[in-house]
Amino acid sequence: MSKPIAVVDPFPRTMDEIFSESDLARLHDIASIVWARDDAMPENEFALALQEAEVVITGRWGRNEALTDASQLRAIIDVTGAFPLDLDYEQCAARSIRVLSVAPAFGRQVAEMGLGLALAAARGITVGDRRFREGTEEYLHAGNTDTFMLYGQPVGMIGYGGLAMALQPLLTPFGVRIRAYDPWLGDGYLRHCGVEPAGLEEVLETSRVIFVMAAPSRENVAMLSRERLSKIQPGAVLVLLSRAHVVDFDAMTDLAAAGRFKVATDVFPTEPLAADHPIRDVDDAVLSAHLAGSVREGLWEIGEMVCDDLEAIVRGLPPLRLQNAEPELARRYASNRPPPLDDPDH
Amino acid sequence: MSKPIAVVDPFPRTMDEIFSESDLARLHDIASIVWARDDAMPENEFALALQEAEVVITGRWGRNEALTDASQLRAIIDVTGAFPLDLDYEQCAARSIRVLSVAPAFGRQVAEMGLGLALAAARGITVGDRRFREGTEEYLHAGNTDTFMLYGQPVGMIGYGGLAMALQPLLTPFGVRIRAYDPWLGDGYLRHCGVEPAGLEEVLETSRVIFVMAAPSRENVAMLSRERLSKIQPGAVLVLLSRAHVVDFDAMTDLAAAGRFKVATDVFPTEPLAADHPIRDVDDAVLSAHLAGSVREGLWEIGEMVCDDLEAIVRGLPPLRLQNAEPELARRYASNRPPPLDDPDH
Amino acid sequence: MSKPIAVVDPFPRTMDEIFSESDLARLHDIASIVWARDDAMPENEFALALQEAEVVITGRWGRNEALTDASQLRAIIDVTGAFPLDLDYEQCAARSIRVLSVAPAFGRQVAEMGLGLALAAARGITVGDRRFREGTEEYLHAGNTDTFMLYGQPVGMIGYGGLAMALQPLLTPFGVRIRAYDPWLGDGYLRHCGVEPAGLEEVLETSRVIFVMAAPSRENVAMLSRERLSKIQPGAVLVLLSRAHVVDFDAMTDLAAAGRFKVATDVFPTEPLAADHPIRDVDDAVLSAHLAGSVREGLWEIGEMVCDDLEAIVRGLPPLRLQNAEPELARRYASNRPPPLDDPDH
Amino acid sequence: MSKPIAVVDPFPRTMDEIFSESDLARLHDIASIVWARDDAMPENEFALALQEAEVVITGRWGRNEALTDASQLRAIIDVTGAFPLDLDYEQCAARSIRVLSVAPAFGRQVAEMGLGLALAAARGITVGDRRFREGTEEYLHAGNTDTFMLYGQPVGMIGYGGLAMALQPLLTPFGVRIRAYDPWLGDGYLRHCGVEPAGLEEVLETSRVIFVMAAPSRENVAMLSRERLSKIQPGAVLVLLSRAHVVDFDAMTDLAAAGRFKVATDVFPTEPLAADHPIRDVDDAVLSAHLAGSVREGLWEIGEMVCDDLEAIVRGLPPLRLQNAEPELARRYASNRPPPLDDPDH
Repeated sequence: MSKPIAVVDPFPRTMDEIFSESDLARLHDIASIVWARDDAMPENEFALALQEAEVVITGRWGRNEALTDASQLRAIIDVTGAFPLDLDYEQCAARSIRVLSVAPAFGRQVAEMGLGLALAAARGITVGDRRFREGTEEYLHAGNTDTFMLYGQPVGMIGYGGLAMALQPLLTPFGVRIRAYDPWLGDGYLRHCGVEPAGLEEVLETSRVIFVMAAPSRENVAMLSRERLSKIQPGAVLVLLSRAHVVDFDAMTDLAAAGRFKVATDVFPTEPLAADHPIRDVDDAVLSAHLAGSVREGLWEIGEMVCDDLEAIVRGLPPLRLQNAEPELARRYASNRPPPLDDPDH
Repeated sequence: MSKPIAVVDPFPRTMDEIFSESDLARLHDIASIVWARDDAMPENEFALALQEAEVVITGRWGRNEALTDASQLRAIIDVTGAFPLDLDYEQCAARSIRVLSVAPAFGRQVAEMGLGLALAAARGITVGDRRFREGTEEYLHAGNTDTFMLYGQPVGMIGYGGLAMALQPLLTPFGVRIRAYDPWLGDGYLRHCGVEPAGLEEVLETSRVIFVMAAPSRENVAMLSRERLSKIQPGAVLVLLSRAHVVDFDAMTDLAAAGRFKVATDVFPTEPLAADHPIRDVDDAVLSAHLAGSVREGLWEIGEMVCDDLEAIVRGLPPLRLQNAEPELARRYASNRPPPLDDPDH
Repeated sequence: MSKPIAVVDPFPRTMDEIFSESDLARLHDIASIVWARDDAMPENEFALALQEAEVVITGRWGRNEALTDASQLRAIIDVTGAFPLDLDYEQCAARSIRVLSVAPAFGRQVAEMGLGLALAAARGITVGDRRFREGTEEYLHAGNTDTFMLYGQPVGMIGYGGLAMALQPLLTPFGVRIRAYDPWLGDGYLRHCGVEPAGLEEVLETSRVIFVMAAPSRENVAMLSRERLSKIQPGAVLVLLSRAHVVDFDAMTDLAAAGRFKVATDVFPTEPLAADHPIRDVDDAVLSAHLAGSVREGLWEIGEMVCDDLEAIVRGLPPLRLQNAEPELARRYASNRPPPLDDPDH
Repeated sequence: MSKPIAVVDPFPRTMDEIFSESDLARLHDIASIVWARDDAMPENEFALALQEAEVVITGRWGRNEALTDASQLRAIIDVTGAFPLDLDYEQCAARSIRVLSVAPAFGRQVAEMGLGLALAAARGITVGDRRFREGTEEYLHAGNTDTFMLYGQPVGMIGYGGLAMALQPLLTPFGVRIRAYDPWLGDGYLRHCGVEPAGLEEVLETSRVIFVMAAPSRENVAMLSRERLSKIQPGAVLVLLSRAHVVDFDAMTDLAAAGRFKVATDVFPTEPLAADHPIRDVDDAVLSAHLAGSVREGLWEIGEMVCDDLEAIVRGLPPLRLQNAEPELARRYASNRPPPLDDPDH
């Protein structure tokens, strides 16, 4: 029996970036692989291959016209971390073609970075280290005038998706109480997950550490407005992990510069950030150049998950490791900028 | 019935520093309190008070001659974080006078900082933040050339005391495997605690992240010699939490400067550190000015534990929150520099 | 704006059985509810109501012909614990009608019972209690000749679905090592869940306690054959939780009667079991009359989950608490006896 | 250098019962072992050996007169599970002779049994199994008329010592809230351990499952009087694990027989219990013949802990696995019947 055909066209990612050596071997074991090169597959070649393919593993879509002829197709796996913007989700649903995202592969590395940034801000690690370079460090109590411990603090989560679920167990041993705001999730579900459902204002007002992990959508542009940011407790820590899109970045910079609260951010309105952007001079801020989701070994989790689910699909079983595009949300995904963490131009 | 007498002379700590308002009220509730001021109690006054006292809560000892007349004395509580150097432990043991240290009050805040420093080093948080200030930050993969995730890494602990036990639950959700070296503890005990007993060399050679938490003693001066430090894996992270005493600091600085491994340290051979010390220029190092054990709210755990155990002693029950001086180790404590974290001159 | 319509026809379950008072109020709050009675809804009335309904909550299906006219239908929720056998899954998939099962509501209560049965067998609780009634109890060591502790034992799971995932955290504090056999799941997924993938024989041969939790299917009739059961370790404990269907019950009875291993079972080939069935006389066996999934308060989790997901569907969001029928498995569900635990005739 | 001498006289326990083969070898490795036989060591021989011994490992004491001449003695290890009644604790304290108990070796096996008994009572496992033998079993809902799930229940602990600390992690995954009553422990300590301090009445009135784990003392004879037992919630479960001494057993039997609450007990006022004791006929009760602390492999934890701490003592380090006799409590131990779990005549 011949193996099922899988087209692997990860551009703008590269093969090495997402597949470890052993997973690459496994990939070829599971299916008959087409392309599997770092440069983008030419469109006509792609369209041709699609006619026989059972699975497409891709870094960009843009080929709805080819969908109709893809009669064997059972799954489209997007390796960027987002769902394709321009996909014909209705057709996929009607034909039971799975649309899958590798977003879960970023959960652990981004969550780990989120905790690291929170501790760096709360305990003054980055600012303390800079003082040492300047020769102005202060020891013991003198260096601890505005620090606090994470233990037992009220914590807020804005957006409770895969990233939040990866972060939650890292926070558990600190005995924190977590309030979560997510308009796409019901209260019962949030309670079942061990967090308290809360309104956005409540999260901002009651938390000592706030993690912003909401995927960007048309509705949430600058959702964290100047007015809302003003509700944050004095001296609290705001950790921005998903996208600058969801926050009024200028307001956030102003308030951080004024010492109202501390900011730790991994994302910026433009990347690279303008050389004269005032946040570069905010002493208390912790600045990270979109580093949370790009650790080398972490990216290999993409390949591991892709292989696990490719194997499941080939065996006629449901994929369980990647994220399924929910039909209810597909239109929302599609009509907006893609969800966070790792769109290629970013 | 009159309340038992407790002398409270916390100098060089202050009352406010260690007692929250509510614990201060509780203190006065439990016992009849003598002194309780920030300045040091005059020796003659102290000697007199000791004759009636059941408990002494103190920041420095140095009064063995007064011990004989302290006929009611049942416990000496040292609030520095160390055990008194010059105490007559034999007399205390023979008379069943408890000698107690507040060291456990530092466990959580130092452990939290230890994790923060490890993540800062492994994920490049401090160096990344400094790049931003210089305008040379690199985004995404380009900024992640030598970072790694803590998840699943082999971790080493040098010294497995109260601090290690506070750190261990914070590491658990990362799924790490922990090897511990502690010459004062048996293999069976370490296994019972959920870590693998290992030799010092094995810990250095096999770990991706190493936490140094050994209390200083006469035997362990520069125990982490140049030769031993050379066994550390390329690119590993060494987190120094207890005392510079246990490491050849010059060798550590050389090796870190040469890029052999990454160092994150909260302690230094002299504090303040010399302005021209070369570790100030090691780009990869994470430098923290003995900040791990002095968070304001964290210090109030001292007062909470002191009140809890004072109450137990007054009720004729064993104290359970502070650390007991073990008779077997008392001589070792006494003949050496005090254990880590918070001796007053430090 | 009028509320969406939901038909609630839980027969053979009753309204009270699955909805607590507060969830019943919530149900009426979320949607305009049709029927909601304990007796079965007449077919013609049902067919009529279906034309307007957005959601159907039902205890039996059997109405495919009505599906075509159900133009508003977005979800079918089966409250028995199984997926409907005779549903036209292809049509549902093509029209993006969710098919949902309340199976997850049974996870906790069945898992708890599974642990209770395992401890009863391993520690001799039921047999010890019976001895007391006969006046033949033996104390201390004499009563512990063939008991063992669960701590640190190798544990096997046959079937790793929702039930296994509910059981796993209950086993974690015992420090057990879990091997799982499940032909519908990939090795990578199982490892990701914290268990070791293993073949059926390996599970049987290496485990001291074996939990059978496999859903019945055409392929797994008597999968635990006499030959396979013979591979179980002497003195091990076999806990049968899903269905008698998956085991050669006569062989299991013989082996248990011969003292080869201990059996604890909640399910039987016929219920009630024949009065003269030999397992009734097996001294070591723990016998439970299908009690694992019918605790009164536990059944209210059905109503809670139904309300949570009804609310999500009405708001245009994906349901997250109930189990989705996976398109890949729908045919397998449909062509077989329903999955375990709670089909109505059982 | 000659090895230190340890006298090992475990009677009424036997060598095999407490030492696994490998720990027996280890024992001989650590020290020069005297006696190490199952029969009781003759007193004169014992007195002679004591003069040279550094450690005594014993199943009965009764030799205070010999203590004065035991000039090398550093530790007395009692292997019964209790502390010796008649020991001269003052002399031991003054001479820094450790008095150690193997009680912690029983924690896990008794805790496991405690959970098993609680589940058996709450879920009706023993009564359900007996019905099967009589041919009167009732299936599904009919068999679940008075059962309840442990998940989320308020749980009470009477006595919060080593046994409670072993039980607590087993209860954690059930999401229970624990109230603990222990007059020997402070509120701060209990809170630090993750339980809520509470009065005895509050524990009885608010808990759905109550674990009695208090060590017997002169003060707590029949502490659970008829009046107090009457405060227990209807249908709650009372698990008696430590000693019948602490409860009015007749009152408990009456109330259980009247169906006021369910009892699961591992201990009885006399053992064997009188053949006509009415508790034998209480249908709902779970009766266990002092089986909780005598599992064969479990008893080897005694030998493991003894070896671990013997090794520590020989190396001049504090023993960390066995329980130290606290000077404050020694008189209380000594003036009463020994603490629970495993005195030899029991």
